[in-house]
Amino acid sequence: MKNIMKIYLAGPDVFLPDPLKIAEAKKKICANYGFMGIFPLDNVLDLSNLTPFESGVRIYQNNIKLMDDCDLIVANMTPFRGPSMDVGTAFELGYMAAQGKPIFAYTNDNRLYSDRVTKITSDLDENGMSIELFQMHDNLMLEGAIVTSGGVLTTNSVQLEKYYTDLTVFEKVVKIASEKLLS
Amino acid sequence: MKNIMKIYLAGPDVFLPDPLKIAEAKKKICANYGFMGIFPLDNVLDLSNLTPFESGVRIYQNNIKLMDDCDLIVANMTPFRGPSMDVGTAFELGYMAAQGKPIFAYTNDNRLYSDRVTKITSDLDENGMSIELFQMHDNLMLEGAIVTSGGVLTTNSVQLEKYYTDLTVFEKVVKIASEKLLS
Repeated sequence: MKNIMKIYLAGPDVFLPDPLKIAEAKKKICANYGFMGIFPLDNVLDLSNLTPFESGVRIYQNNIKLMDDCDLIVANMTPFRGPSMDVGTAFELGYMAAQGKPIFAYTNDNRLYSDRVTKITSDLDENGMSIELFQMHDNLMLEGAIVTSGGVLTTNSVQLEKYYTDLTVFEKVVKIASEKLLS
Repeated sequence: MKNIMKIYLAGPDVFLPDPLKIAEAKKKICANYGFMGIFPLDNVLDLSNLTPFESGVRIYQNNIKLMDDCDLIVANMTPFRGPSMDVGTAFELGYMAAQGKPIFAYTNDNRLYSDRVTKITSDLDENGMSIELFQMHDNLMLEGAIVTSGGVLTTNSVQLEKYYTDLTVFEKVVKIASEKLLS
């Protein structure tokens, strides 16, 4: 019997007011397509007697363990506190890429990166820094990693109230992953 | 004879108006401390006949090759287009972390992450998303990776005009890396 493939569910979802609610919804979708979803908050850690900084390091090390145990990643690349995705999630894409694991992702903002950055000219931002013009949805390291790993990015245009919770294109990309990896 | 250790010079420096200028300055500092600095733009790629998207993927694959060839990373974590660091650089931290390579970093903004995010309460941002309170300078995956790898983060408070170009704490962290890895 083949072991069920585990998906690391990366994203700023952990910062939602009720992160366990979206974790359950995502896991249910994963199960519907033959995967097991693993959420960063799945392990309950004992952080008593730790400083805030030590707690952060402990959570980091736990997330690393969870990623090592997963077969692929499905990342929420919806922009977070700026034109780009959450940096913790970007780190996790890099971590999984180095392990040669497939990278799938979705975003609830389907505009290209260059259309989201505040600019003064077509390719310069307000600080005079160049804006990437690769027809990608974020920095090239991210979409480059997805394509190179054989994964897919699904995109959507979602109203602000559901910007971090709408799972339409999450389900879509999990379905594509199941077709690519499980059939 | 021991091979010279190579540092992957990660950061949004590639988006500066004259990226090769800072590349040269960083490489000189690396050499002064016994390292060889490798900059993402070091390989000249033939991107003719490629679409913008294909060019982005090609640059991604080249950066991966450069990282695979480096022994450690020194990342510029100065905030970029928002409260967090550049997402491409965050990806690269994750990539090097997965390879077990030492991660050193610096930032020209020494405020804690929680002091940089626009908030409505002490731990909620304007979209109602939780703000990490780990006394760290960015998302816990980043400073967690630095500490766990045996690396160090140096910080500074730099005036806006030199926010992306001041190399004071870059030099400081390269010096620390040389003391830790070369002695």
